[in-house]
Amino acid sequence: MSKTRNVSLSVIKRMPRYYRFLGDLKAQGINRISSKELSNRMGLTASQIRQDFSCFGGFGQQGYGYNVTQLQQEIGSIIGLDNKQRTIIIGAGNLGKTIATHVKRELSTFEIVGIFDRKESTIGQMISGIPVRNSDTLEEFCKEVFPTVAVLCVPFDAAREICEKLSVLGIKAVLNFTHFDVALNFPEMKVENIHINDSFMTLCYKINSDGDE
Amino acid sequence: MSKTRNVSLSVIKRMPRYYRFLGDLKAQGINRISSKELSNRMGLTASQIRQDFSCFGGFGQQGYGYNVTQLQQEIGSIIGLDNKQRTIIIGAGNLGKTIATHVKRELSTFEIVGIFDRKESTIGQMISGIPVRNSDTLEEFCKEVFPTVAVLCVPFDAAREICEKLSVLGIKAVLNFTHFDVALNFPEMKVENIHINDSFMTLCYKINSDGDE
Repeated sequence: MSKTRNVSLSVIKRMPRYYRFLGDLKAQGINRISSKELSNRMGLTASQIRQDFSCFGGFGQQGYGYNVTQLQQEIGSIIGLDNKQRTIIIGAGNLGKTIATHVKRELSTFEIVGIFDRKESTIGQMISGIPVRNSDTLEEFCKEVFPTVAVLCVPFDAAREICEKLSVLGIKAVLNFTHFDVALNFPEMKVENIHINDSFMTLCYKINSDGDE
Repeated sequence: MSKTRNVSLSVIKRMPRYYRFLGDLKAQGINRISSKELSNRMGLTASQIRQDFSCFGGFGQQGYGYNVTQLQQEIGSIIGLDNKQRTIIIGAGNLGKTIATHVKRELSTFEIVGIFDRKESTIGQMISGIPVRNSDTLEEFCKEVFPTVAVLCVPFDAAREICEKLSVLGIKAVLNFTHFDVALNFPEMKVENIHINDSFMTLCYKINSDGDE
C-alpha cells in the first residue's frame, strides 16, 4: 500500500483513532470487521471510512471485510510508528513525570532518552528508570544523543527560551503541553499541542450553551 | 453583548485561545490592541478575528482597538467561566493527581469537590488538600454534593462502567483522558477529549510525512 502525500489534516487526525479502535477490537479477540460494522462502532459512515483509507491507497478485500491485525499494522506504519524517535522530556514536575511514565508504558515509538529540569531538588530523581538531568546540560546531551522530539512540560514563562534552544539543537518536533504558541513562533518545527486549559474551557462552553444549565 | 446560539464549533474552539492570548497580553501590561495587531500575534487574519467576535454580537470600538481586560472578561463570560462547576476527578493515579493539582491552581471555574479511586493504597491520600475517596462511595457522594462535571483519569477498561454510573448520578459533562469513546456511547453527555496517545501519533505522522526523515 502506497503512502500518499498531501492528505488532509482531518484524515490524518482520524488515523490514530482508527489505530486505537482496531487495537480495542484486537483486545476483544475480533479478527475481521466490515467497514459497516467498524463505522457503527466508531460513529462514522462506512463510506467515510472507505474514503479515508482510499487516501492512502485503500486496504483491499471488498466484501470480505478488513483483517483487524493487518489493518492496524498498516495504519501504524502510515502513522510512522515503526520509526523510533529519540525523545526528551523538558520539565520534570507532576506533568512531566506523568507523561514520561505514560509514554514509556504505552508509546514505544517515542523512546525517552532524557528528562530535564532546572530545579535543584528534582535533578537526579529517577522517573521510570531515567534520571532527571540539569537543564544546563541539555546542549551537550543533544550533541551526543541527537534526540529529535521534545515534550514540553514547562511553565509558560520558560517555554520561549527553551524552544529557542531546542530549535538550534536539532529538535524537529514538539509535543507541547504549555500555553506558549510554539507553532506560531517556530514555524520550522512540527508541533502537536495538548492545551489542557483550552479543553476545560471548551467543555465549559458546551455546558453553558445548551440552555439546560 | 448578547450570546448567540448555533455558533460553529471551530469558532468556539478558538475562544479559549483568544482568552489565553489576551491573558498573556494583560500579563505583559498591554491594555489596548487592534484586531490587526492581535491577528499578527495569533497567526490569524484581522478579518477572521472580527468575524469570530461578530458571531457573539461583536465587541465595539472600531478604530480604537480592543480593551484587553474587557475583551478577555467578555470572552470568559461567553465561555461561561463565571459559572462554577462542581467537579469530581475519577482516578487518582499520576494523571489524576497532576490534573487535580493543575485544575485547582489554574481553573477556578472547575471547583474540585471530590477525587475517587478504587485502589486501597490510594484511598485516604490528600491531593491539593482534597482526600481521595473510595469509588464505592461515589453514589452517596453525588446524592449529597451534586457534582456536574467529571474528569476521567481511569484506565480504558474501567471507563465504560464508570460512565454508566456517572450518567445516572447527574454528571452532565466529562473531560475524558481515557481512550474510551464517551461521546459515542453516552450521547447525552457533553464531552471534551484529551487523547494523549492520539496527539503523539499525529505528531509521529507529521515527523514522518515531510520527506526529510
